[in-house]
Amino acid sequence: MPELRQDPVTGYWAVIATERAKRPESFTQERKESVKSNAVCPFCYGNEAMTPPEVLAFRPDGGEPNTSHWKVRVVLNKFPAFTIEDKIKTSASNMLYGKQKKSEIYANMPGLGIHEVIISGPDHSKSLALLNVDEVELIIEAYRSRLLKIKDDQRIKHVLIIVNHGKEAGASLEHPHSQLFGTTLIPRLVADELDCSRRYFCEKGHCIFCDIIEEETKLGDRVIKESEHFLVFSPYASRQPFETWIVPKNHSANFECISSAEKRDLAFMLKDTLLKIYEGLNDSPYNYYLHTSPYRINSGEFYHWHIEIFPKLAIQAGFEMGSGMMINVVLPEGSARFLKNL
Amino acid sequence: MPELRQDPVTGYWAVIATERAKRPESFTQERKESVKSNAVCPFCYGNEAMTPPEVLAFRPDGGEPNTSHWKVRVVLNKFPAFTIEDKIKTSASNMLYGKQKKSEIYANMPGLGIHEVIISGPDHSKSLALLNVDEVELIIEAYRSRLLKIKDDQRIKHVLIIVNHGKEAGASLEHPHSQLFGTTLIPRLVADELDCSRRYFCEKGHCIFCDIIEEETKLGDRVIKESEHFLVFSPYASRQPFETWIVPKNHSANFECISSAEKRDLAFMLKDTLLKIYEGLNDSPYNYYLHTSPYRINSGEFYHWHIEIFPKLAIQAGFEMGSGMMINVVLPEGSARFLKNL
Repeated sequence: MPELRQDPVTGYWAVIATERAKRPESFTQERKESVKSNAVCPFCYGNEAMTPPEVLAFRPDGGEPNTSHWKVRVVLNKFPAFTIEDKIKTSASNMLYGKQKKSEIYANMPGLGIHEVIISGPDHSKSLALLNVDEVELIIEAYRSRLLKIKDDQRIKHVLIIVNHGKEAGASLEHPHSQLFGTTLIPRLVADELDCSRRYFCEKGHCIFCDIIEEETKLGDRVIKESEHFLVFSPYASRQPFETWIVPKNHSANFECISSAEKRDLAFMLKDTLLKIYEGLNDSPYNYYLHTSPYRINSGEFYHWHIEIFPKLAIQAGFEMGSGMMINVVLPEGSARFLKNL
Repeated sequence: MPELRQDPVTGYWAVIATERAKRPESFTQERKESVKSNAVCPFCYGNEAMTPPEVLAFRPDGGEPNTSHWKVRVVLNKFPAFTIEDKIKTSASNMLYGKQKKSEIYANMPGLGIHEVIISGPDHSKSLALLNVDEVELIIEAYRSRLLKIKDDQRIKHVLIIVNHGKEAGASLEHPHSQLFGTTLIPRLVADELDCSRRYFCEKGHCIFCDIIEEETKLGDRVIKESEHFLVFSPYASRQPFETWIVPKNHSANFECISSAEKRDLAFMLKDTLLKIYEGLNDSPYNYYLHTSPYRINSGEFYHWHIEIFPKLAIQAGFEMGSGMMINVVLPEGSARFLKNL
């Protein structure tokens, strides 16, 4: 089981993912090797047995679990950063945590949690930008469905869903997929958002995200696209060129409460935004993540779910790593104008 | 002048570096182009006029400022992320901040500060790992000297010194150099360290770094090297494979108070650690940063300056970006063993 360790100097947690652990020597080797092409893809039709058993799949035409002809398929990650076990084995637990058990300065805990893969569709080479709106809607439905289902496990406090597109953005398998991380703690960045938006709500009585939507709509110069239910824009303090947020106009802290109409609209807006990156930025690698409220936290009034998209065009270097501040060489208003006009 | 903008959702500041701004269109072009080789290097002997005038240089054999035959040379960054101006021009300020002046949700400020380049030496291709100890000591002396000098400017609250080695780690010029950032605010990560170490000190009456040194020395399994004045080790909650900290054994919050003996010892330990990365990890790209106490903050008892080194072997992907937690696939104890035995 992976291990979480807390840095006593910053309070940040790191995931020491022993399940996917590499020997240090392997890094030397990797830097020598050229990029390997994928041999057999475990996410393509016919290779269902290569993944752990599915936890969800959409098969509108019927069919047995773990066979082909699914539209979207969700499986456990084979090399998980978090694993769920009904009972933490004492021996394994001792092995991992025994040595530090008596440490007064170091805290750790088992890497208990859920790490799933949401396979976008059967086509090995069609990223979200190139799927049709129906197909993207099914992926969003899979997000919603898993978020609702995982809520039943009282140990899981928060779910983060992410996409890594392209090798430079950290995708280790070509076949388009999302990843879902259910954790027993609330990740630092989400906790920071909750703290800040709660404070804003206490001071002003409004949701900060709702106020941002109002301000951005009024100013207009950072808006990329607007639909009935969503605003797509370059955030005011964009950390990277072309950073883009998709925020629902109706206040809602929990993504899993999305309505059917919103789901359809989001599919269109997400596809459209990613298509702009595909066409306007030469299919740039990108990451996106979905921030939604932790489970069983009373954040309904002050938090607001949203998606943040980051084309991978800048390198996080020494200044950014050492300061926690990003340097962005493009004005957010310029990014918005460029993406809007595509 | 660059602009600092604060994200109202997280409280994080971003630097919108308009001085080094690129038009969004340029990103499209860059992805199409292959890597350009450096034409004339502004950091080599004879090209001193290509940089802004020097603010410090060591010329043991004498010579005029901004001529050759220096050993280490410090100049302002030509494309700065922060600039210092005696008076902020009202017109420029209006242009940048006028539109948001009445915003109730967005905060910004001028990117006032100092951004310098410390050129490691005359040799275009010798990184710190390959310099001799005398040469590295001169670089460290330049760090100390600039930190002491910049302290006189009451507007500057903190100085961060970093190195980006290799293109993948964000180095835009090949010629080895460090960068110094003097800021009018305390960077988030440093503020987090200060908060956490202050709390620890209040609770336990010790410096957390001193306690870490004691614990690591006792356990031994994360120690890479120890000298009279320094401990080099893989931190307990290492965020990345081969993350390495160099911490002085004598308690000191301010790097600029380093003694001559420590300076000499640090030159050896820094060179030695970077040589391990050079030899053991195939000259991996890396970043390092020096964390030292902000000026005029009474952190003497609880903070402790140190250097953190990150070989660039992992990609920060969607999970890391969306959570603020890093996934590390190598046990810190394994990293330490590998580097120790080189």
